[in-house]
Amino acid sequence: MGATFVVIGGDAAGMSAASKAKRDNPDITVIVFEKGEWVSYAACGMPYYVKGVIPSLSDLVQVTAEEFRTERDIDLRTGHEVVGINPDSKTVSVSASGKQFEQSYDYLLIGTGARAIEPPFDGMDLDGVFTIHDLNAADAIHDYVEQTDTATAAIVGGGYVGIEMAEALATRGLSVHLFEMLSHVLQPFGESVSPIIESHLESKGVELHLDTPVSGFVGDEIVESVELEAEMVPADIVIVGVGVTPNVELADAAGIELGETGAIATDEYGRTNYDEIFAAGDCAETTNVVTAAPDYVPLALTANRVGRAIGQTIAGTPTKIGTTAGTAIVKAFDLGAARTGILDETVARTAGFDPVSVEITAPSRAHYYPGAEDLTVTLVADKQSGRVLGGSVVGREGVKRIDTVATAVHAELTVAELQQLDLAYAPPFSPVWDPILSAARVLSGSIEKSG
Amino acid sequence: MGATFVVIGGDAAGMSAASKAKRDNPDITVIVFEKGEWVSYAACGMPYYVKGVIPSLSDLVQVTAEEFRTERDIDLRTGHEVVGINPDSKTVSVSASGKQFEQSYDYLLIGTGARAIEPPFDGMDLDGVFTIHDLNAADAIHDYVEQTDTATAAIVGGGYVGIEMAEALATRGLSVHLFEMLSHVLQPFGESVSPIIESHLESKGVELHLDTPVSGFVGDEIVESVELEAEMVPADIVIVGVGVTPNVELADAAGIELGETGAIATDEYGRTNYDEIFAAGDCAETTNVVTAAPDYVPLALTANRVGRAIGQTIAGTPTKIGTTAGTAIVKAFDLGAARTGILDETVARTAGFDPVSVEITAPSRAHYYPGAEDLTVTLVADKQSGRVLGGSVVGREGVKRIDTVATAVHAELTVAELQQLDLAYAPPFSPVWDPILSAARVLSGSIEKSG
Repeated sequence: MGATFVVIGGDAAGMSAASKAKRDNPDITVIVFEKGEWVSYAACGMPYYVKGVIPSLSDLVQVTAEEFRTERDIDLRTGHEVVGINPDSKTVSVSASGKQFEQSYDYLLIGTGARAIEPPFDGMDLDGVFTIHDLNAADAIHDYVEQTDTATAAIVGGGYVGIEMAEALATRGLSVHLFEMLSHVLQPFGESVSPIIESHLESKGVELHLDTPVSGFVGDEIVESVELEAEMVPADIVIVGVGVTPNVELADAAGIELGETGAIATDEYGRTNYDEIFAAGDCAETTNVVTAAPDYVPLALTANRVGRAIGQTIAGTPTKIGTTAGTAIVKAFDLGAARTGILDETVARTAGFDPVSVEITAPSRAHYYPGAEDLTVTLVADKQSGRVLGGSVVGREGVKRIDTVATAVHAELTVAELQQLDLAYAPPFSPVWDPILSAARVLSGSIEKSG
Repeated sequence: MGATFVVIGGDAAGMSAASKAKRDNPDITVIVFEKGEWVSYAACGMPYYVKGVIPSLSDLVQVTAEEFRTERDIDLRTGHEVVGINPDSKTVSVSASGKQFEQSYDYLLIGTGARAIEPPFDGMDLDGVFTIHDLNAADAIHDYVEQTDTATAAIVGGGYVGIEMAEALATRGLSVHLFEMLSHVLQPFGESVSPIIESHLESKGVELHLDTPVSGFVGDEIVESVELEAEMVPADIVIVGVGVTPNVELADAAGIELGETGAIATDEYGRTNYDEIFAAGDCAETTNVVTAAPDYVPLALTANRVGRAIGQTIAGTPTKIGTTAGTAIVKAFDLGAARTGILDETVARTAGFDPVSVEITAPSRAHYYPGAEDLTVTLVADKQSGRVLGGSVVGREGVKRIDTVATAVHAELTVAELQQLDLAYAPPFSPVWDPILSAARVLSGSIEKSG
């Protein structure tokens, strides 16, 4: 008989691990407990469902529950909530349809994900106030906008979810206010990206309220306005998108160690402090490739990649889960913005680097070729070693170039090496010196001069 | 007094070196001899001038001769042809306005470029038969199409110039025939790219004649048809684009060593067999990053990069010229195709690798996001080491992703490392697993299984 592999949570990390383990080693019995009904869905697509460019929520499901059961031979049980992990007996306690039972495991993966942070604002429970994390929330927002008379929207939080929802609701014709308590939107994207995104949001009619903490929401059952320190701003719908927090309570209660980020600590194979218990996805830490420190990157690719590696390990081929660079990309109306690695000077210094950076603007195509758009590229490197630490790209096209920087960051290239890469050039696709190369050239020159 | 740096040829390599040397060390006297009138122009833009999307040839000039003289303090002399190099006396013989003089140098850069290959076809001298290499040729083709009654065009050669010219002339309304003596167009892009490009060219009305050698051109002063082995194909204009050959006669006559590719051999600083004589651009060899063997890559970025590095060396900071991966990208109507590194199995084996490859097709964006287009990605790796050797990408958008592969090739990443890169994902820009990652994942799996 093969081993029993139990997975808690049927989303990206869990289903990637389940699928990979079963495919590589069909003798393993794979049981997935998912407390909801949706499995393996693209949460990142939700703003575009609200916007109206994706017809149905079911389009966001990558593989259906039925396909996992019949085609991949995975014992996927939706509506099953794991309420306890018992590492000593190697069992989990499961609640379903009002009954509870124990399931034993040889290997366990915790893929409990994260949930939207619910700030302790007054009026969070008013009708028309939403957080967005799962498909049910996206569905509710979509229906609320379609079925009620919403003219003004308030977005609380200027991270990528806030910006995507601002685009979605403004495109639907709502008048959108965006509230950010910090001085800039998209803070993790760095100083050169935020002002460009902010001007663009304003040009699209989004009213930005920076340095503006929200105190709460006011209304009589239904939200009517956002309460600030000194004023009230009317709002028919409110989306609170101030980040996510990992679902670690189940793990914590079982004595599984959490890391300094608050997510579940794991080793380079995704193992927790119990040898046969793994954690992956939005509930688990990763290791930052630049700082080598624990990091919390609740993004889809990480969940998929780490889940898959763990599945492979459990199937018999020990596979490292890899590292993360915090690479992210976001669309804001007509602009794209992307970032990777370490952009923040303080973070870089704490990790022992002496960061220097450069910001350049260069065209996305040959300057004379129709459709060329300005790209603003920031590149950060360590002054002593020249190692590329991170970068950002913002512009109307071609921001996927961040992948070149992400690859350089992972490969620990120096900025001098980055500058000499043989990247692709033809007038419809790039200037002779790709903007990434131009940035590297300038930064390399400034390091040489100061060195 | 500073040294005298003489440059032969006022295009990408020469002007990059001249500008960099002068900027870094203003004491150097920099003299550039250019036999023609155009300097520092974007030859790659020529097909788009012929196509009609770039209004003026002067748009392709990056920096004007006047700017080099006044703003960069470079003694740029157009209409000056270097007719001899005398390494023993460290002088060049220059011919201008019917007179000849000697110019001494401390450092010399040979940037004589390349010229279009003129095959020994009958009728090459007929009116309406063109090769395309410099701006004068582009101008002549443009004017010929505008001013004469051209209804049918014949393109000889299915390389990137041939394909770009096919697009240019078809877009202008000409009926285009493309003749390629090999069995596929874009041979260096590999087996998975060519058929996709060929179908697309045909869908755009380009009549492809593969495996079809041309014997010559027939007409009475003006070209009327292309002669094949068994038939004649009418043509009002013929573009012969069968590659370029380096201009090495001047160097060869002076005892400067040529390499196995036929271009000028140089060391890692761009030096020839004479310490003070450098060569760069379309007349010089480079070193392939994968095979470590001499390579001939007559492309714009290489010329710019190598020229700049040599300028920096001459200014006092020894700088390696870097390596090339043979990265190239081409637009063919609505498709883009890109390649990097080693795709050819024989070349890989000769260099001591045991190549394995994979071809996958994946969407350019999340599958549910509007505008997603299929991308076909090929990845080649060495079976033993797992090292990424090369790759190609073809599709309607997002082919600049080849830069990720090029960076991996330069950084000597394995396919397992490539698979674990933290690349950028959001639905408008990519699937969760970028197509490059998907290809790496599949190739990595196939290496593991066979290993």
